[in-house]
Amino acid sequence: MTELAPGRRSRGGGGAARRAERTAVRIEAARFIERNIPVMDLFSDEALDIIEANAETVLEEVGVVFSDNPKAIARWKEAGASVDGDRVRLPKGLARTLCATAPSSYVQEARNPERSVTVGGKTLVMAPVYGPPFVRDLDGVRRYATMEDFRSFVKLGYMSKWLHHSGGTVCEPTDVPVPVRHLDMLQAHMVLSDKPYMGSVTDPSRAVDSVAMSEVLFGPLEGRTVTTSLININSPLTFDGTMMGALEIYAEAGQACIISPFIVGGAMAPVSVVGTLTQVLAEVMVGVAYSQLVKPGAPVIFGTFVTSIDMNSGAPTFGTPEASQILYGAGQLARRLGLPFRSGGGLCGSKLPDAQAAYESANTLNAALMGGVNFMLHSCGWLEGGLVASLEKFVMDADQLGTLHRMAAGVASDEAAQAMDAIREVGPGGHYLGCAHTQAHFKEAFWRSEVFDNKPFETWEEEGARDTQALARLRVQQLLERYTPPPLDPATAEALDAFVARRKEEIGTT
Amino acid sequence: MTELAPGRRSRGGGGAARRAERTAVRIEAARFIERNIPVMDLFSDEALDIIEANAETVLEEVGVVFSDNPKAIARWKEAGASVDGDRVRLPKGLARTLCATAPSSYVQEARNPERSVTVGGKTLVMAPVYGPPFVRDLDGVRRYATMEDFRSFVKLGYMSKWLHHSGGTVCEPTDVPVPVRHLDMLQAHMVLSDKPYMGSVTDPSRAVDSVAMSEVLFGPLEGRTVTTSLININSPLTFDGTMMGALEIYAEAGQACIISPFIVGGAMAPVSVVGTLTQVLAEVMVGVAYSQLVKPGAPVIFGTFVTSIDMNSGAPTFGTPEASQILYGAGQLARRLGLPFRSGGGLCGSKLPDAQAAYESANTLNAALMGGVNFMLHSCGWLEGGLVASLEKFVMDADQLGTLHRMAAGVASDEAAQAMDAIREVGPGGHYLGCAHTQAHFKEAFWRSEVFDNKPFETWEEEGARDTQALARLRVQQLLERYTPPPLDPATAEALDAFVARRKEEIGTT
Repeated sequence: MTELAPGRRSRGGGGAARRAERTAVRIEAARFIERNIPVMDLFSDEALDIIEANAETVLEEVGVVFSDNPKAIARWKEAGASVDGDRVRLPKGLARTLCATAPSSYVQEARNPERSVTVGGKTLVMAPVYGPPFVRDLDGVRRYATMEDFRSFVKLGYMSKWLHHSGGTVCEPTDVPVPVRHLDMLQAHMVLSDKPYMGSVTDPSRAVDSVAMSEVLFGPLEGRTVTTSLININSPLTFDGTMMGALEIYAEAGQACIISPFIVGGAMAPVSVVGTLTQVLAEVMVGVAYSQLVKPGAPVIFGTFVTSIDMNSGAPTFGTPEASQILYGAGQLARRLGLPFRSGGGLCGSKLPDAQAAYESANTLNAALMGGVNFMLHSCGWLEGGLVASLEKFVMDADQLGTLHRMAAGVASDEAAQAMDAIREVGPGGHYLGCAHTQAHFKEAFWRSEVFDNKPFETWEEEGARDTQALARLRVQQLLERYTPPPLDPATAEALDAFVARRKEEIGTT
Repeated sequence: MTELAPGRRSRGGGGAARRAERTAVRIEAARFIERNIPVMDLFSDEALDIIEANAETVLEEVGVVFSDNPKAIARWKEAGASVDGDRVRLPKGLARTLCATAPSSYVQEARNPERSVTVGGKTLVMAPVYGPPFVRDLDGVRRYATMEDFRSFVKLGYMSKWLHHSGGTVCEPTDVPVPVRHLDMLQAHMVLSDKPYMGSVTDPSRAVDSVAMSEVLFGPLEGRTVTTSLININSPLTFDGTMMGALEIYAEAGQACIISPFIVGGAMAPVSVVGTLTQVLAEVMVGVAYSQLVKPGAPVIFGTFVTSIDMNSGAPTFGTPEASQILYGAGQLARRLGLPFRSGGGLCGSKLPDAQAAYESANTLNAALMGGVNFMLHSCGWLEGGLVASLEKFVMDADQLGTLHRMAAGVASDEAAQAMDAIREVGPGGHYLGCAHTQAHFKEAFWRSEVFDNKPFETWEEEGARDTQALARLRVQQLLERYTPPPLDPATAEALDAFVARRKEEIGTT
C-alpha cells in the first residue's frame, strides 16, 4: 500500500526556482505506510481491563502534579478535578471523557503536498532519531554534534526513500547557542528537505517561533496542521510548566503533539510491565485530556518511551522483551482510547553500529510494526541509548524501514500471485527462473536492500571484505555527494532568512 | 512458561560415573518454550482457502515424482493415487486424508530426561545451525569445517541455556570420510551433550545406523522417539529415493522427521509468495502422507525452508519480508493441517557476524516466534546463507533466543505485577529504585544479555571499545574453557565406541 511520489515540481517562482528545478535530483520517497495486515494483540482484554481500571484509580487516589502552571491548575479545577496545591486528582472517568474530543487521526501537511502524512488509524509514519548530543562521525570519532552534522542528517532523511518525516532534533547542534538553536534547526528542516517536520518544545517561546516560522513557509495556517512536536512527561506523574507551556501553544494553534511519558524502567515507573503500562496510561490520558482542555479537537498522539534497565549497572537497555511487551500493550491501550500511537524505532544500547545495535534495533522495529505503531520516532540513526546519532546507523536503519513497508502491504493472492500456470508449466524437477511468470514478475517480487552485501564470497572478498558499517559509510558518502536541495521559492527562502535573523537579533545571543 | 532444569544427576554407575558427576559443571538449561501468547495470523482465511484448493489442484493435475523408489510407487498405487512411471497424481483430498494420522505433537526424549522436548501445539524447540561445509573460526579465517569444529559447536550448544536441542550436522566435518562421517557426528552429540539430537539422512543405511546407535544409548526404543531428522524435498515436487529411503527407515522405527521443501525463491518455486506457499503445501502434504503410508502415526513436522533471492545476482537472501511472509503463511497452513511446524532461525546472508547478519537474523527470529514455529532449526550459528557456521554468531544468536523465551511467556497481571502499592508509595516526581516493590522484584524483572555491552561509554572504552563480535569471541573462549561433559555411564560410552569402531570396519573407509 506504499505510494511512491516523485520529487515535487516547483509551482513557479523566478529564474532561481526554475534553475533549482532543472538541477534537482528527483527523490523517490514512500509517502507513508497504510497497513494491510492485522496488528498483534499480545495482551488479553482482561489484562487491559485491569490496567485501565488501575489507571483510573491512580488518577483518583494519587493524582498528578502540574508544576509552575497556575493556568493549568485553574483549567483542571474548572473541569471538575480535585486540586490541592499543584496536585490534581481526577475523578474516575474524567480523563477518558476529555480524551474523546481528540481526533483518531490527522493530516500533517508538508511543504511538498506529495509528502504530507496521515497519522493514525492504519497508517505508519516514520521519523528519524531525536535528541542525541553526540555524533559518531565517519572517522569513527564520538564527539559533540554540530549544526553541520544536523544538516547532514536532514539531507540523508530527505534522500531516504522509506523515511516519511524529517523529524526534529536529529542531533543537538551544540555549536549553536541554546536560545537560538531551534531557529537554525527549523530552517534546516524547512530548506534542506520538503518532508514534514517537528517543532521546538524546550520553551513556550520556541513553540511560538516554530508556529511563526511555519507560517512563513506555509502562509496562514488556518486550521492546517504542519508540525508534530514531542511533549515529554516527567514521569512519574509530573507535568512541568515548560513542556505544558509548549503544548498549550501548539494545541491553541491546531498543531499536533505527541504526549509521551519518558520512562527508564524500574526508576521512573514500577519494575513490572503491567505496572509501567498503568502509569503510562494514566499519564498519557492526563496529557491528552489537558490538550483538549486547551483546545478541544487539538491533534495529539498517545506516546510511549520506556526502556528496560540493566539492574546491575543501572544502564537503560533496548530491544529487550520487556520493552517490546510494553510497546505491544501501549498500542492496544491507545487503540482502545481511539488515539494515534507513537513508539520507537531503531532503538539500541550499543556504542557501535554493530551486531548488538542491529539485533536490538530489529527487535524494536519488528515489535513496532506488529504492535501497530502510527508514528515511529527514532526510526533510524539512534545509537548508544540515544546519546549518539550515527550517520552509518542512519542509512542502515533507513534501509531496513523498507522491509516494514513490504510487510505492512500484506500479500497479494490474485491470479498472478497464485502462479498456477507457472506451477503447471515447470512441473516436477523443473526450474522457474526462465518461465513466463518469473520473467513477468521478478523485478518487483523481492524487496532488495541498498546497503547489505549479498554477493558471492569471492566477489565480496575481492571488493575488500567490507562489513555493514563500511558499506554504510560508503552509502552515506554517496548520498551526501548526490544531495541537491528540493526546490523552494526564493522569496520564501529569503523570508525565512529574515525571520531567523530578526529573532536572533531579538533574542540577542548571536 | 520456561522451566529451568538443573544438570542431570547421574543415576549410578561405577567410580568413573561418580567422578564425572563430582567434576561436572551444572548446566542451567531451559527445557523448551511453551508459549502463552497468541500467534500472528498474517493471512486471511480466504487466502489460505485459495492456497489449499490450489495445492489440491497441483497434486491432481501436475502430481509429484518419486524417483528411484519402486516401493513408494507401489504404496501410492495401493493408496488410490494415479501412477504414470515415477509420476504420482493424487485425487483431491487424498493427501490431506492421509495426513490425519500424523500426531499433532510428540515427545522427543533426550538421554537426560530433563532435556526431553515436546514438539507441537504451543511449544517451541530450538536447534542450532545445520549443514555448513565451512566455518569462520576465532581467528577470522573462513575454511572447511573439521570434526574438531563440530565438537566445539556441540559443546557450545550443550552450554547454551536457551538452546533446547543439540541439532544434527552443526557443520560438515570434512576431515572425516563421508561414508563414516555420520558415526562420528552422532557420537559427538551423544557423548558431549545430553540434549536431544538429529539422525543422519544422507543414505538409508546411515538412518539405520542412527537408529541402532540410539538403541545403544537408550536401550530398546519400543515406541520411544529419540531422534528428529531433516528430510528435504527436491523442490519442485520431486521426492528422491535417498531422502525417502531415510524417511522410510525413521518412520518404521517410530522416529520423527521434518518434511521440508528446500526452496530458493524464484528458482525452485514461483516468484510469488502465494504461489510458493501453494507448492510448499502440496509438497509437505505428499511427504507427510507418504510417512503415514509407511507407518500410520509416525511423528512428522511440517517443514519449510524458503529463501528470497537477489534477482540481479541470483544470490539467496534472508531476513527479508517475503521470507517472513512465507514463514507466517506456512505456519497457518501447518496449524490448519494439525501438524507441528518447522522453520528457521537466525538466518542471514552476511559473510560476517556484523550488523547485516544481526538485522536479518533478528527479523527471522521475530517472525518465527510470532508465526508460531514449533521446531526452529538454524536458531544459532548460521552465517553466509548457510555456507558457514560461526562460533561467534552461535553465541550471539543463542543469547537472543533468551528474548524469545521471555516474549513467549507472556505478561503477568497478578497483584504483584500490577504494582499499585508501588505507584501509591512513590507518587508524582518520586523514584522507584528504592521502593519495596522494586527491591522485591528487580532481579527477575528484566531479561539480560550475556553477550552485549550496556556499560557506560567510558567503561566500555577503557575495556577496549569491543564490538559484538569481539565480545562474542571472548564468550566462546570462556564457554569452551569451562566445558565439562555431562555424566555418561562408562559402559554406554564404551558400547558407543565399539559400535562406531565396528561400523567403520564394516564400511571400510577408516
